[in-house]
This record gives sequence, structure tokens and C-alpha cells, in this order.
Amino acid sequence: MKKFMDENFLLENDVSVKLYHGFAKDMPIYDYHCHLNPSEIYENKPFENITQMWLGGDHYKWRLMRQNGIDEKFITGNSSDYEKFEKFVECVQYAIGNPIYHWCHLELKRYFNVHEILCSENTRIIWDKCLKINYTPRQLIKMSNVHTICTTDDPTDSLEYHVKLKDFTTKILPTFRPDKLVNIDKQGFVQYIEKCNIKSLSDLEGFIEDRLKYFREIGCRISDHGLDYIPYEHGNAEAVFDAALKGEKLNSHQIDVYKTHLLLHCARLYKKYNIVMQLHFGALRNTNSGMFEKLGPDTGFDSINDCHLAYNLARLIDSMGDNPKIILYSLNPSDNYVIGTMTGNFKDIRFGSAWWFNDHIDGMEEQMRANANLGALNKFLGMLTDSRSFLSYPRHEYFRRILCSLLGNWVNEGSFPENYDILGKIVQDICFNNIAEFLEQ
Amino acid sequence: MKKFMDENFLLENDVSVKLYHGFAKDMPIYDYHCHLNPSEIYENKPFENITQMWLGGDHYKWRLMRQNGIDEKFITGNSSDYEKFEKFVECVQYAIGNPIYHWCHLELKRYFNVHEILCSENTRIIWDKCLKINYTPRQLIKMSNVHTICTTDDPTDSLEYHVKLKDFTTKILPTFRPDKLVNIDKQGFVQYIEKCNIKSLSDLEGFIEDRLKYFREIGCRISDHGLDYIPYEHGNAEAVFDAALKGEKLNSHQIDVYKTHLLLHCARLYKKYNIVMQLHFGALRNTNSGMFEKLGPDTGFDSINDCHLAYNLARLIDSMGDNPKIILYSLNPSDNYVIGTMTGNFKDIRFGSAWWFNDHIDGMEEQMRANANLGALNKFLGMLTDSRSFLSYPRHEYFRRILCSLLGNWVNEGSFPENYDILGKIVQDICFNNIAEFLEQ
Amino acid sequence: MKKFMDENFLLENDVSVKLYHGFAKDMPIYDYHCHLNPSEIYENKPFENITQMWLGGDHYKWRLMRQNGIDEKFITGNSSDYEKFEKFVECVQYAIGNPIYHWCHLELKRYFNVHEILCSENTRIIWDKCLKINYTPRQLIKMSNVHTICTTDDPTDSLEYHVKLKDFTTKILPTFRPDKLVNIDKQGFVQYIEKCNIKSLSDLEGFIEDRLKYFREIGCRISDHGLDYIPYEHGNAEAVFDAALKGEKLNSHQIDVYKTHLLLHCARLYKKYNIVMQLHFGALRNTNSGMFEKLGPDTGFDSINDCHLAYNLARLIDSMGDNPKIILYSLNPSDNYVIGTMTGNFKDIRFGSAWWFNDHIDGMEEQMRANANLGALNKFLGMLTDSRSFLSYPRHEYFRRILCSLLGNWVNEGSFPENYDILGKIVQDICFNNIAEFLEQ
Repeated sequence: MKKFMDENFLLENDVSVKLYHGFAKDMPIYDYHCHLNPSEIYENKPFENITQMWLGGDHYKWRLMRQNGIDEKFITGNSSDYEKFEKFVECVQYAIGNPIYHWCHLELKRYFNVHEILCSENTRIIWDKCLKINYTPRQLIKMSNVHTICTTDDPTDSLEYHVKLKDFTTKILPTFRPDKLVNIDKQGFVQYIEKCNIKSLSDLEGFIEDRLKYFREIGCRISDHGLDYIPYEHGNAEAVFDAALKGEKLNSHQIDVYKTHLLLHCARLYKKYNIVMQLHFGALRNTNSGMFEKLGPDTGFDSINDCHLAYNLARLIDSMGDNPKIILYSLNPSDNYVIGTMTGNFKDIRFGSAWWFNDHIDGMEEQMRANANLGALNKFLGMLTDSRSFLSYPRHEYFRRILCSLLGNWVNEGSFPENYDILGKIVQDICFNNIAEFLEQ
Repeated sequence: MKKFMDENFLLENDVSVKLYHGFAKDMPIYDYHCHLNPSEIYENKPFENITQMWLGGDHYKWRLMRQNGIDEKFITGNSSDYEKFEKFVECVQYAIGNPIYHWCHLELKRYFNVHEILCSENTRIIWDKCLKINYTPRQLIKMSNVHTICTTDDPTDSLEYHVKLKDFTTKILPTFRPDKLVNIDKQGFVQYIEKCNIKSLSDLEGFIEDRLKYFREIGCRISDHGLDYIPYEHGNAEAVFDAALKGEKLNSHQIDVYKTHLLLHCARLYKKYNIVMQLHFGALRNTNSGMFEKLGPDTGFDSINDCHLAYNLARLIDSMGDNPKIILYSLNPSDNYVIGTMTGNFKDIRFGSAWWFNDHIDGMEEQMRANANLGALNKFLGMLTDSRSFLSYPRHEYFRRILCSLLGNWVNEGSFPENYDILGKIVQDICFNNIAEFLEQ
Repeated sequence: MKKFMDENFLLENDVSVKLYHGFAKDMPIYDYHCHLNPSEIYENKPFENITQMWLGGDHYKWRLMRQNGIDEKFITGNSSDYEKFEKFVECVQYAIGNPIYHWCHLELKRYFNVHEILCSENTRIIWDKCLKINYTPRQLIKMSNVHTICTTDDPTDSLEYHVKLKDFTTKILPTFRPDKLVNIDKQGFVQYIEKCNIKSLSDLEGFIEDRLKYFREIGCRISDHGLDYIPYEHGNAEAVFDAALKGEKLNSHQIDVYKTHLLLHCARLYKKYNIVMQLHFGALRNTNSGMFEKLGPDTGFDSINDCHLAYNLARLIDSMGDNPKIILYSLNPSDNYVIGTMTGNFKDIRFGSAWWFNDHIDGMEEQMRANANLGALNKFLGMLTDSRSFLSYPRHEYFRRILCSLLGNWVNEGSFPENYDILGKIVQDICFNNIAEFLEQ
């Protein structure tokens, strides 16, 4: 039996061990998609305790507690930080097979030198050990060997903290996320447009270009679109936009005409300014209206959606003509093979890392297998954190172990030669070089 | 090489062996969903031979014979019981990888002490050995250590056999299954409504509450809805109901308005009387109209359907407000991750056991992995038989071996600590405690 | 560690080794679906070099090169054959996990006795070794132990090369593929109909029967339909056909009425003349309109589609009444369980081999597991090449190794008895006997 989470965790044979320790482990991290707050990085306030770091805003952990029947007061309520930690440990100790179980242990080991197992009898000792070390955000980033962080930012953002952080050793770059300009069917659209002093569709198009140019100046290399589904309709987008501003109710055809127009406009600009376009789809958000009223969005009440996407996605990208670099993510793992084949249809389309509900061992392995079966796994862009937590960098370690395990098993079973020039290059390209090249060239 | 189906069948390492033999094996069975006939349990007539027990009404086995090209006269026709058994053995001996192969061998071992391999040269010897032992239904239930059986019953059922069986050591409880009241689009709806003396929607609502109260008195803890798809529409359900009674043809919007209304009404009552709501969807039934005319429903001509469900399912549960306890089942394994995330969005939603075409090793393991990857596998409600056969309880043994194999492999590879307080509790909770608590508290 | 691709490649234990070398290896090949050109078989011109054999028309390999960012001039452009080979090796050496990696090595070993690893430093030596051996198509077919080849042919084809090849040791049989007659919504339909002197729907129906009879005379045993989706509508097909000939624009209902009518007409004829009906669906073709204009269809710009199919497929087959033998293929592996259950609903329905983007280790294994979990894997029709290349027969070796690995692992873990009478029959039936019987009886 292998020891619990030792240095060869997830590495089942000598080849995997050599690949991880010899090639993957020390590569820097290029976190090309996350939700860290640049102002928190700038302000750099130390965290008081493990609850603040772990449970402050992490809806993955909140869901796990709710699925264990824990009362909301210990999750987002006003219980003490220690009580919340205690309840979390009560749950996580039984979370066999769940990635949170592994993430938590890796975080305790890597940042706090705590090697105790997370279980109720160790609650106090772990709490106390973590309490002694009050890390700041930037300390955590440095310890994690992070080369670049791409935050997620609204087009109207001043990016002041990105500017202030320009001398920090890790590059903190903005990501252009114009969802509020695309989602003409969501509450608040008209107010947002008015706030920006936009009167017409051509105003809007100019506004987007202006803001994108500014983002580019501050170092932006990548954009992001969170789509409920893939729209694809052609028509008079200007008329739809004008109708929306007048407060008219739009039908689904009108909505899709507008969204298609905006996405194609953005794609043109991304190509012009060499910005990568990220398309995220397949999420069904805010399903619980009662909890949404109490806690708002991104609090753990989201789900995987099931929509057809192949036809519209192919038509949308084809309509771009000379498309920008694109990264595709679906939340529904049943789409893996659809997206895996889409990457071969156009230039510079890549399948992004296994997203959100898929960033566990099975999800990451299956996505990499789809990549390999359908094309060039060696060109895979690798891991990102997609996280709101400064402690989440061991997810890269987790991913890299899974990657090295997969490759090592293939070699071990005689399916690929034991050639470390080739294998080492594949590992290091996936860990860092591919994404750096994709974003920076 | 491991011996064929020995005491450590499916258990690949010491941890799995300890978990199965030390924790899982002797737990009682809570069969929370089956199609056993309470009158047969009450009447307790012995079976004459293995054909009656195995092939009397088991459409799983019929399908396997048809897929092997066997003539219908040996399946549902008037061949002798021995000929039918002979033909079945001819097929099953080649059924490598199919769960029926394992179920049959487990049933022969556990009930008949027959350890011969099912193959044509053993047909006679197995037939004869089984012939010597004429079990009755209650003997089989007792031998199987069954704590509770939830049968499937129409709201109009008198439940007389449940009443008569109240002193049997195993609890035989009714399940409230009002499909005929919900399916306004199916043949026979109006006749059913008229038979119940229901004149209006409010009559119907009262009728449902009255019957549910009666079911509750007789011990009912759980209901069941077989949905072709998940309806979600709001409108004037009363008008739709009246139109249906007048024999008007309903459009799909009207049908969904009515179904949504009825499901929400049932959900309210289930919450009020603390009844668990089971929702089954994703089946495409009676696809072969020729065979349907000859043999009727549930004869082996059903299929997995492919419908979108995420949006409507989320809206339906959200509309319940304070939802009852719910168990979700889809027949399409591509929905595993959609349902796995839905369980985190509302209180007391659980993913039911891998259903019907999914209750094989791959299907059960994948469903448990989805449960683990997305949340709290430790809260899983575990196995049910969904069967019409009194011999089907070894499917629990099969499930428990798969469960212990999965957990043991995780421990063995260093992904979870070898702590039998934690592991044993997880195993026993999944085998029995979780479902008992979910239904009885 | 196992040696790279040695004689026991993919065979993990003694049972698998015995099954492959003792039962599978020497079975002849029945290639029941391929795209080999009968005129090339007849003309039998030797190939000049490995580029002509490997890269002449193989869009699988083109995609891999494009996914690696190779310039189109080295793919379909006018670079020299050596330069194209060089660029291909540059890519394939990193293609870990991709079936092309294994196919290429098997082809080098089996046809050229080349055992060097495909990597840039071996480019010249492999090129030179292959250059010495100028195989002709028929030499390659004979070396591959191919019993029968079913080509893919348009109903208007004269089949002259099939006639001329009637004395060749391998049977070269035509396949009836009337897509151009079914696809009333595709460009060129009216011209095609006019070219055939068809004036009415009944003309067309007669034309199809005449041509099918002719195909049958030349040895045709199988037909093929490439469907973008499964149509199912009833209506006045004659009126739709007439409207199409007049150049009227058809709506989707009309299109589906016509397609349903034609498919049912073909099904009746296939039953009458004992022709197997192949239905292929789930592809989204020619997604890249720019490249389509330059290179045309089947050049590597196709994708997996995601459509609902269960309901229409069940209704379509049910409407056939006494259906012909049918083989079903979906390009989307998420449909495996839907199709796997469909095979049990009607007589003589089989799940075809894992198709196109699924013919890798994972895809083939998962499809066989679905077959086993849901029914009778022993009746599986086994492998086909679906290829345009005369070198692609080692894909049968690849498939057979995967099959023997799967079966051997089940035996090795104690899930099936080590009985070589049973196991050997299963293996040989899947390799050859099942398809020969399905087509020839």
C-alpha cells in the first residue's frame, strides 16, 4: 500500500516519478484564469486564521458543507471562525474521493508544514499550527513560484491596482471580461450602458475598442466570455440594441442577434490587438432563488447545464473569418469530445483546462485523454486555478501529478517510448511553455 | 489470476477485503425502491423451478436472449420451463461483462449452494439442484437480511396486503406512485379520473391528499414519479384539466402546465407529510409497437432517452420553495454530472442509485465517482433492487463489493488514510444508515 | 516496465496473450466499411514513397499536423514529399496517447519491417527503408489477410472495377450509399435527380430499386446512410419532392417528411433484397468554410455534433415494421448508452464499431464495455477500417489487442471463467464470424 499523500502521491511508477520530480515540479506557474482580487494583492493584508483563508469565499467548500447537512450559520452565517473550521473538518474528514480533500491536505503541507490528517480529533492542533503563520497574499504568491496571474476584470475597471503592482515579481495582468455588455437579456444591462454614456451600437463598439486598448497597455493578453449558451443568429443588431435601450422586451431571436454581433465584434478586436478569447459555457447559475436573495451570486448554487453547442459554436467561429486565438471550456464533461474535435477545425483553437466541477482527478484525466485521443495533447495549455483563494496554487501540483501519472502509465505499459527528451518537453510545455507562448507571441 | 467469483470477488486489495467482510457484508438491506408484489409476499407460494424464479417476469434476461437471436417462443412463448432455461443458459454462458452473468452466479451460490458455472454442459445439473429447493418469497426475503421493502403502488390501491403483512419481520411499506394522475397526455387518463369520481382539479388535489394520508398511515415513507422528461411551465392548470376531461386535444404547453402544477402540488404534500419524493426520468418506453401490442409494457423494449433536463429540473425544484426530500435518477449516464451538481443546489436532494441500464460495475462505479468528485459520497443513499424478482437481493452484495473496491483502491493508492473508524462509517452509512435516516427522520 | 510496442503490446496478462496470439491474430479481416477506391485496387499502381501512402489523403494525419501549427504548404500544399514526411514526423513524435502514433508504428513494423521509433532523428533512415519497398494496393491487401472489402459507392456508379476484380482473392464488394438521393436540402440535389432522368417520386423509388438490384448482382450486401441527424416526420413526400424539383425553398418539416419517406423506402428494399442498412449520424461536417472552398470535403475540418436522437431513431425503426438488419453508429460517444439500449428494442439491430473520432483505445474499449453492460458483446460485429489508405489494416490488429486485453482482464480479475472454448469463440466471432454471418445469411 502506498503511504497517504507522500512525495509520490498519484505517481504510480518510476517513469511518473521521474517526470514529476525531474520536469514538472519546479516549473513556474502561469495562472491564466483566476478570480484573485488585485486590490487584495496590493494591500497585502495578512490573514488572521485558516478559516479566513479557506472558508472566506470558497463556494466549493460551502457546497460540501451543505451537502453534509451543516446549518448555514456555520457556513456563511455569524458563527465564530473556529466553529466554522470545526464544522468544515467534521465534513471534510469523510470527503473521500473529493478534490477538496486533497487540496486541503496539500495546502496544509506546502504552506503550513502541517502533516496531520484533517479529522475532528486534529481540529485544534491544526488550527493552532496555522494560527502561528500569518501569511500575506504576496508571500503566498511568491512561495508558489507564480510567474503570471491573469485576474478577471470589468471593461470599466480603472486597473489601478494592476498599475500599482507593476513592479511586483509576479506579473499581475488584467483580463478583459465584457459579459455585462454582451448580456442584453440580464437585469442591469441598460443601467450599465447608460453609466458608460453609450447611446448607440457604434458608440458601444468604440467603447469596447477604447477599453480594450487601455487593457492592452496595462498588459492584458486575454479576454473572457461567460456564455449561458452559444448564440448564433444574424440580423439587425443595431435595432435590437436601440429597442433594449428603450426598455422593450426582446425575444430570443433578437437577443441572439445582438449577442452574436457583439461576440464577432470582440473577436475582430481580439485578433487586431492579439488578445486571446476565452469562451466559457455550460453553467446554469443561481438556481436557488431563495439563497440568491440572501447571499447573491457565486455562493455555491450553480450547476452544470446541458445544451447543444456544436453547431452554433462551429458557425460562430467560422463567421469570425480570421479568428483570434480561442480557448474553449464547457462545464459539462459530456461535451469533451465535441470540443476536442472543434479544436481541429480552425487555427489556434485550444481546449482549456478541465473547468470548475471537472477539476478533480477523473475530470482532468478524462479531459487530457480526450485531448490526446483527438489531437495534440502536447499542445495543451495546462492548468489554471479559476480560484478566489491565495492558497489554491497546489492545484497546479495536483494537476501536474495527474499529468505525469497519465504519461508515465502510458510509457510503463509500453505504449510510448521511455525517451525523456520527448517526454520532458511534453511535460514542461504543458506545465508552462505552451500557455506562455500562446499568450505572449 | 484471481479465482472466478470467490469470496473476494471484485475486491482487489486488503483494504477492500477488510471493508467488505468487516463492515459491509452483514449490514441489513433497506430496499427503498422495488417492484415486488405484496400479494405474492403475503400468499407466499413456493416457486416450482428456477425458470419461474429467473425468467417469469425479468425483462433484463429477455432482452439478453433477444439480443442473442433466440426465438420469442423460448422467451415469452409457450415452450416448457426447462426449454426456456436451456436457451437462457445457452445465451448467458457467453454474456461476458454483463451484470446478469454475475447476478445469476451470485443467486445460485447464495440461495441454492450451486457453485457450478452456468454453461450448456451444466444446464441439467443446475436445473436439478435448484429443483430440490422450493423457496417461498418470504423465505427468500428472510435469507437476504432485508430490513425494509418499499413496494410500488397506485394511489387507488387498497394496500390490503401491506396491512396483512404488518407482523412480518421485514417491513413491507407502500410507495405512493401517482403517475396515472400526472400523465394527462397518456391513454386512459380520463377513465382513471372518472373512476376516482374526480370532477375538478381541486377534487383531484383533495383526492391526492386523502390517499397520501392513508398511505402514510400504512407506513409509506416515499413516493415515486416516472417522468418521460422534466416539465416546467406555469399557466391555468384548472382550465387544462377541464379541457382534458371534455376530451379536448392538449398541446405540449398545456400538458406541461398541468404536469408542473401536479408535481408542485405533490411536492407540497410530501413536505407536509414528510414523504420523500423520487423523480425518475430519461427512459423511452415501449419503442416497439408490434411487441407492445403482443406483450404490453415492461417486457424489454425500453431504451435510454436523451433530453435536456438541467434547466427545467432546477426551476421545478426551486419553485417548490421549501422542497421535500428528493431523490433524482436519470436513465442516461451522460446526465450523471448534471444531477451530481443539482444535489448541491437545494437542501435534501440526493442522487439515487445507478438506475436500470446503469446497475452494472461501470455504471455504479461511475455514478459513485461522480458523487465523490462533486460532493459527499459519504451521504449516498446506496443500493436498491428496482426488481420484480425475489432472488435479486445479491445485487446489494454486488453493489457493496463495488463500493468497497472503490474505497479500498483509493486507500491503497495513498489517496485516503487507512482509518477504519472513518472508512467503516462511510461504508455502513452507504449500505444502510443513510437511507434509513433519510426516510425515517 | 513493458517494452515499447512489442509482440504483447496492450496485452497485460497471460489470458490476454493467449486470446490474442491463440485466437485473434490469424483470423481473416472482413472490412465491412471502408473508402478504398476500387479503381486503384484494379490499377494496382505501386506507391513511390511513404508520404504517398501515409499523407496522400489521410485527413486524420492532416488534422494532427494542423493542431501542431504546421503550415498548410507542408500538409496539402506543394512542398516535396520528403518535406511533408519530415514535418509529419516532427509532430507525430510528440503525439503521446493518439492512435495515429500507434497506427504508424504498427504499419512500419508490419509492412516495412521498420522497428525504429518515429522521431526527427530517424526521419531519413525510415524514409529510406520505406523507399526500397514499392508495394502495390493488392500486395498490401493480400499481406493483410483481408477476406472481403466493402467499398462505398454512389447508386449511379457503374461498378465496373468491382466486376473487373471478381477474380481477385479478396472479395471487393460495393456498398449502396444513396446520400445524394436522400439529402434534398443539400446543394446539387436537383441536378443529381435530373442527371438520373427522374421526374417524380415514384420514378425515384423505381430508380433506387433498379440500382439496388444491380448492386446486389455485383455482390453488394450492405448499404450506408450518412445522416446529419435522425429525421422523423410523416406527410406528403411527393409534394415535397415536386416542390424541390421546381426549385422551391423547403422548410425543415418538409425536408424531414421527404427524408423519412426515402429512408423507409430504402429500408423496405433492404429487407426485400437482404441488404444490411448502416446508419451513421452525429457528424458536423465542413465547419471551416474558408478551407472548404480551398480543399473541398473530407479534408479534416469535421467535428462531432450533439443532437437528440433517441426518440426519432426509435420511431424511425419502429415505422419500418419488419425492419432490415441495421448497424448504428454515432460519432458522439455520449450516445453510446442510448444506442446500446436501442439494439435491444428491435430484431437484428447492432451497434457498429467505434466510429472515426472514437477509434482509439479509450473509444473502442468504452464502446465494447457499453455493449457488454447493456447486452451481448459476444454478438458484436467488430472492427472495420473506414479508411482511404491501403496501409490501415493494422487497425484490426490494434482493435483485436484491445478486445483481448478487455476480455483477459475480466478473466484475470475473477469476473469470468478461464474457459478457452467460450472465450476463444467470443474472440473469433467478434473478429470475423459475426460480421460474415450478419452480411451473408
